[in-house]
Amino acid sequence: MVPGLDGLFSQVFSRGGAAAEVTDAAWLAAMLDVEAALARAQAELGLVPDAAAEAIGAACDPELFDLAEIGHRTARTANPVVPLVAALRERLPAGLRRYVHHGATSQDVNDTAMMLLARRALAPLLDDLRAGADACAGLAGRHRDTVMAGRTLLQQAVPVTFGLKAAGWLTALHRSHARLAALRLPVQYGGAAGTLSVLGGRGHEVPPRLAAALELAAPVVPWHADRTPVAELACALGVTAGALGKIATDVKLLAQTEVGEAAEPSAPGRGGSSAMPHKRNPVGAVSALACVQRVPGLVASVLDGMLTEHERAAGPWQAEWETVGELLRLTGSAASWLREVLEGLTVDAARMRANLELTLGLPLAENVVARLGGTPQARELVDAACARASAERRPLREVLLADPRTGLTERELDAALDPARSLGSAGVFVDRAVEHSREDR
Amino acid sequence: MVPGLDGLFSQVFSRGGAAAEVTDAAWLAAMLDVEAALARAQAELGLVPDAAAEAIGAACDPELFDLAEIGHRTARTANPVVPLVAALRERLPAGLRRYVHHGATSQDVNDTAMMLLARRALAPLLDDLRAGADACAGLAGRHRDTVMAGRTLLQQAVPVTFGLKAAGWLTALHRSHARLAALRLPVQYGGAAGTLSVLGGRGHEVPPRLAAALELAAPVVPWHADRTPVAELACALGVTAGALGKIATDVKLLAQTEVGEAAEPSAPGRGGSSAMPHKRNPVGAVSALACVQRVPGLVASVLDGMLTEHERAAGPWQAEWETVGELLRLTGSAASWLREVLEGLTVDAARMRANLELTLGLPLAENVVARLGGTPQARELVDAACARASAERRPLREVLLADPRTGLTERELDAALDPARSLGSAGVFVDRAVEHSREDR
Amino acid sequence: MVPGLDGLFSQVFSRGGAAAEVTDAAWLAAMLDVEAALARAQAELGLVPDAAAEAIGAACDPELFDLAEIGHRTARTANPVVPLVAALRERLPAGLRRYVHHGATSQDVNDTAMMLLARRALAPLLDDLRAGADACAGLAGRHRDTVMAGRTLLQQAVPVTFGLKAAGWLTALHRSHARLAALRLPVQYGGAAGTLSVLGGRGHEVPPRLAAALELAAPVVPWHADRTPVAELACALGVTAGALGKIATDVKLLAQTEVGEAAEPSAPGRGGSSAMPHKRNPVGAVSALACVQRVPGLVASVLDGMLTEHERAAGPWQAEWETVGELLRLTGSAASWLREVLEGLTVDAARMRANLELTLGLPLAENVVARLGGTPQARELVDAACARASAERRPLREVLLADPRTGLTERELDAALDPARSLGSAGVFVDRAVEHSREDR
Amino acid sequence: MVPGLDGLFSQVFSRGGAAAEVTDAAWLAAMLDVEAALARAQAELGLVPDAAAEAIGAACDPELFDLAEIGHRTARTANPVVPLVAALRERLPAGLRRYVHHGATSQDVNDTAMMLLARRALAPLLDDLRAGADACAGLAGRHRDTVMAGRTLLQQAVPVTFGLKAAGWLTALHRSHARLAALRLPVQYGGAAGTLSVLGGRGHEVPPRLAAALELAAPVVPWHADRTPVAELACALGVTAGALGKIATDVKLLAQTEVGEAAEPSAPGRGGSSAMPHKRNPVGAVSALACVQRVPGLVASVLDGMLTEHERAAGPWQAEWETVGELLRLTGSAASWLREVLEGLTVDAARMRANLELTLGLPLAENVVARLGGTPQARELVDAACARASAERRPLREVLLADPRTGLTERELDAALDPARSLGSAGVFVDRAVEHSREDR
Repeated sequence: MVPGLDGLFSQVFSRGGAAAEVTDAAWLAAMLDVEAALARAQAELGLVPDAAAEAIGAACDPELFDLAEIGHRTARTANPVVPLVAALRERLPAGLRRYVHHGATSQDVNDTAMMLLARRALAPLLDDLRAGADACAGLAGRHRDTVMAGRTLLQQAVPVTFGLKAAGWLTALHRSHARLAALRLPVQYGGAAGTLSVLGGRGHEVPPRLAAALELAAPVVPWHADRTPVAELACALGVTAGALGKIATDVKLLAQTEVGEAAEPSAPGRGGSSAMPHKRNPVGAVSALACVQRVPGLVASVLDGMLTEHERAAGPWQAEWETVGELLRLTGSAASWLREVLEGLTVDAARMRANLELTLGLPLAENVVARLGGTPQARELVDAACARASAERRPLREVLLADPRTGLTERELDAALDPARSLGSAGVFVDRAVEHSREDR
Repeated sequence: MVPGLDGLFSQVFSRGGAAAEVTDAAWLAAMLDVEAALARAQAELGLVPDAAAEAIGAACDPELFDLAEIGHRTARTANPVVPLVAALRERLPAGLRRYVHHGATSQDVNDTAMMLLARRALAPLLDDLRAGADACAGLAGRHRDTVMAGRTLLQQAVPVTFGLKAAGWLTALHRSHARLAALRLPVQYGGAAGTLSVLGGRGHEVPPRLAAALELAAPVVPWHADRTPVAELACALGVTAGALGKIATDVKLLAQTEVGEAAEPSAPGRGGSSAMPHKRNPVGAVSALACVQRVPGLVASVLDGMLTEHERAAGPWQAEWETVGELLRLTGSAASWLREVLEGLTVDAARMRANLELTLGLPLAENVVARLGGTPQARELVDAACARASAERRPLREVLLADPRTGLTERELDAALDPARSLGSAGVFVDRAVEHSREDR
Repeated sequence: MVPGLDGLFSQVFSRGGAAAEVTDAAWLAAMLDVEAALARAQAELGLVPDAAAEAIGAACDPELFDLAEIGHRTARTANPVVPLVAALRERLPAGLRRYVHHGATSQDVNDTAMMLLARRALAPLLDDLRAGADACAGLAGRHRDTVMAGRTLLQQAVPVTFGLKAAGWLTALHRSHARLAALRLPVQYGGAAGTLSVLGGRGHEVPPRLAAALELAAPVVPWHADRTPVAELACALGVTAGALGKIATDVKLLAQTEVGEAAEPSAPGRGGSSAMPHKRNPVGAVSALACVQRVPGLVASVLDGMLTEHERAAGPWQAEWETVGELLRLTGSAASWLREVLEGLTVDAARMRANLELTLGLPLAENVVARLGGTPQARELVDAACARASAERRPLREVLLADPRTGLTERELDAALDPARSLGSAGVFVDRAVEHSREDR
Repeated sequence: MVPGLDGLFSQVFSRGGAAAEVTDAAWLAAMLDVEAALARAQAELGLVPDAAAEAIGAACDPELFDLAEIGHRTARTANPVVPLVAALRERLPAGLRRYVHHGATSQDVNDTAMMLLARRALAPLLDDLRAGADACAGLAGRHRDTVMAGRTLLQQAVPVTFGLKAAGWLTALHRSHARLAALRLPVQYGGAAGTLSVLGGRGHEVPPRLAAALELAAPVVPWHADRTPVAELACALGVTAGALGKIATDVKLLAQTEVGEAAEPSAPGRGGSSAMPHKRNPVGAVSALACVQRVPGLVASVLDGMLTEHERAAGPWQAEWETVGELLRLTGSAASWLREVLEGLTVDAARMRANLELTLGLPLAENVVARLGGTPQARELVDAACARASAERRPLREVLLADPRTGLTERELDAALDPARSLGSAGVFVDRAVEHSREDR
């Protein structure tokens, strides 16, 4: 059971639409959808009577089942499909019961239901990623020329634009969206050990129809013990979470009291503290990060779980059930938080400018070196001026002007030290990122 | 919110008593226990009026709070303690409200409640570990001399006893029990940023009293940003899960159709399959392994979370809430499954003996080498006999007897090739493990 | 520095061609290749003189550099590119030194070199995967109809074919090959903070030419702080390692003394033990698993590292250097081991048949149920017969024949209980997997 | 083979003394030490002749062995102990060869050597932790009353002291030191499968003597398949790495250009950038973090590896070899970096004060609330003043003074808003942490 939507921590970890698609109720509904679709697919192929498929379809109504009771009855089999199939059969006339779960093994239902859950949970997640990317594109466009300090190893480096930063966010979100949207989520149908022996030689006709009915993919062969599809899903979520976490990291750093270049959208009570009335915490970035930081360990668990034994794993497979739900829930929650943050992000261009001055023009020293020919002598001269500016806390411009060896006019020096004239290809990169994110839609 | 007890997969992952201690309801109760104990501790120190402590204690009844509503109200602060304190204050006369959560920050309550949860969840987990260890001690004693194949790299090696195998299990469980029982679980009380400034200079008097009231430890200094206690808890659970997983691995391997040396306790329907009526799956070992395999990734998450920023982390800390609950729940479930498996394990000594014959006496070839003096010549002779026995699928005894160069009497050869006479210190080790597990109680 | 090729454990963890491509010497060579290609690309664009590019190209000969000295000089900058660029400049006439590393930052070189390493290490890895897949296809074809026990939760389930098992291995390897071959490995060139300001507005023209020269991809924008390409590489390796680990798991289980259905290729001394002359350990599968089990934690580290700060990360990025090398080395080693194992795997069809008899025909009981109409009564009758067969260790066939209620002729019963007639779509699946693996080449 | 000391990245990841103790040469030496000590221990017990022990001891000189050749010879056994023992035997007179490795299995030597490596690598690591802790104690003492902003969720909260921050670091380092120093590192000696059958009934007498000789612990029973000691070592290193990472995180945040409250020790060229002459990067913190971030995944690998099969694991165990070396190397390197950083850390108390003013006194608003009685009305009044101060960027003091409803004298207000008078128990906590770290020595 993946944590619910009304829990103490749900607002942090179960935000957005994905969480609702991975609850136990969603699992139960998906399992029943699989049983119904299986009967229908088999009826189409003449493998079960139409009447059976109809009756099974009608009986596969989650409202008719007691989730808790089914859960309790798994104690002996460690798999809820066993009691679920029993309960489903009980709801049918005796003569039709044999057509329920026909030729299937529990894992067929678990696995197909998991893929169905993934498809359903990915829909709102993809929406949030798209909206987040759109918000990034908007920020990139609006702030294409908003100068700010580029920061490497958390030290001010040369100037960049906020547009360029947002373009980097955009590219990563766009790529994650494309990766998730391109995932193949296959149905599972292999019977007891992958041969579908119960259906004689016709079992392999079923998966394509089952896949069509559930809007999933048809696999080459049953994948009971080849967990590649699950691992690919987990990895795609893992990379997405990382892309979201990068943005959240930047937001929380930009929102620092001493930086103050960006702020999360404000609302009454948002970001408040129980002990400090003055605080406005970046709750969106913090919550997203809390989600994101839990993801790599879960991805590792899924990868570990690929070491399956023979035709069905004894442990690694079962470990996927809640883990995959967690991955969808947490990545979905992070995407939902980030969407809100990005759509309402406040950018303080003036503060960005002001912060640049903290470094006295030193980040542009390289420009002066370049303008002086990039020679070792030039570097030496500029290094000395930097050291002096730094020691005396005076602007580099002032120090260089005072040094006759510099040999640059005031105008040349200003040109060299103007951040807005030192942005290289930043604008081109912004335009390219925005364009790229539109093309691939 | 840690998954509940009535979910589809709860019988697998939420077995045993620990799961009930880490539900959202348990979190809410623990948080209220902390608020009540804090007021009481402060009243003892004269920091708040007795009447306030009494009123707060009375109001801290989980039945009086709407968990879902508190959960929903965390959307703006990303921490349930904020709305919980607000709701608690609302239940008190206006004049006493200020004494609620006095001098505390939300994290004081989150962290102390988490430690309280851990203490409560560890109790049934420790019981199950103790019972599992006792069962191992029983198996070790009863099978002190039950000969079976030792297996290295999954190949039969020299003979061992089942008692020795059980002694290894026992030692690991005993050690895990001791480690968990010795954990220091400290209260947290540091106020907004660790100084307890609201209490003037007396704040540091509170933790010892709070600790005594909640049967937790008092820390040297507030540990808002030093997550050592959480990491130690996570690691202790991680090693315990590994110890349980080792046993489950052995049980599932011993239960293989082709090995058949041990079987899980049987009960009607236990281990049944939806597709194969003949099967008796080792559901206990499988379920335990499904729990255990999820643990290392969670431990890694907690360790990652130690990289906290300044006086309160922006993401890593919040990520602990559900993760620590999961660690307790999953390790607890694995312990509960293993206890059942160990208490009811069926051991087939005859099959153990029979399986030994599969290797034609080859695993004891080293004994013959030794008896022949351990010389290169002896090894060569025995190697050749082994090769022949292997190629012709004849017992080594037969091949060696037929080779005049062997120079051993039939009696000497039987002695060399008798598994029961080739157990070295196995019995001593069994006795020592059992004794050791009793001593330290 | 990734462990070398002549170490104590290299034969286990550094097998195959990938390891040689991620040594420190390979890193140094790749970094110099990047500097040379950068100068060349810039000369093509008229950004540096042709003579400079030529001189730089000539100087970028790894033989001319002292790796250890460069390593030692990183103590102050924590990045080997700084002293490498200094050493490279020293080898050039003073007038050309400024054209070395023009407009670049260290990370441009680290990142591009890492991608170059990946491309080079993937080549032998892809070869080994392809050869391993081909071996699987061969096994699948030769054993298309070799009957063996399907095993679920390590218990014998219904019969499958070894061909079907090999088809599953094939599908997973094929997919991993395709995923790795399709990876986009982009060059990095963004300068100090991603703007390429030193090159005025022309910096963005460089990456496509650099990419062409190094046979890498050109990125949309610099990705200094968007580690998506690295995470995708890590994940693709992670899934590949899992696919390899699944095969190794099956091999080690099939090679168990008590199962004995497959054996690794034998060679003098291969799989020997220091203490047990009779043993033939599955060293290939074991070594592959030792590699594979280290991979998920490394993937998690790379995903964790996506949480980069601003324009260059302070810790997470640097943590990638050795980690990515390890991922390539370990996955490469596992692929190399598995290739050898698969190309020389010995399959014992007779033992497979014999092992099936251990279950007395019970795994096919479902067939009898089906033939009796799949009714509850049929299941009850067969369950009872199974119970009896099991209790008395008699073949199910015998028990059922003795029970008049069965109502099947001996012939019908034999048909129902013949594994070779109970393989459903196994053959179709084998053919499909083999075909699919050819199509996509 | 763990990466060496002269590699491109060694200065980052192999700093400090631990790295030299986990090289392949160190492994080889440790393995020979184990063989020599084993022979000696057995000679003491009369199990091998004294002359043999002496000859073996003399032959166990690492200089006499060709590491690369031994490495290459592991290809067939996947374990270097097999060819090492063969090479060692070759160096002895024929008659004594049988006494080499007497009764032992390869794993006895691997495991004991690993513990020996750990003991040796822990010595410099413990030194660095102790020195780092001492430096923290010094900082805590010197800055016991140095006021700075407490920061929670990266927002300024209430004031703390730098001494309190250093006290938190100290407590964590002290605890990690104690945990590592208390580790039990046991010898391994169980023979082929844990019974020591080759030694008849006397094998169990060997481990205590072997342990004494190697300054390791004696286990209750052989632990070939109970990896608890390795997991405990890994976890202790994992928690230590986390404690170091917390400090490094704080240092890199404090060193940010916009914060500037602390700086790493400076030296010529230290922290320089290839592209930006003005930069002074916090290379120590960054390098430590690069090490630390790789640790949790490695710990997870070791925990995963606890799922061993029967008497010797087929994969999980072998995976430990390089992983444990990496854990020691990386944690050791982080400790060495942090020691340097802490011993030379520059603290800028003036900047700390100045940064506090950025929040206009708002972080102390709670004090005013308290002084006004903590009533809802007081909170409302102060909240309004805070909002106004915030909106108008005026100091809270000024706003409150201008509001007649405040009712506090200027002196009372100054008292409420003086950070130095609002430090609660900070000083007590500092004293306690320093004292505690001394007591336990």
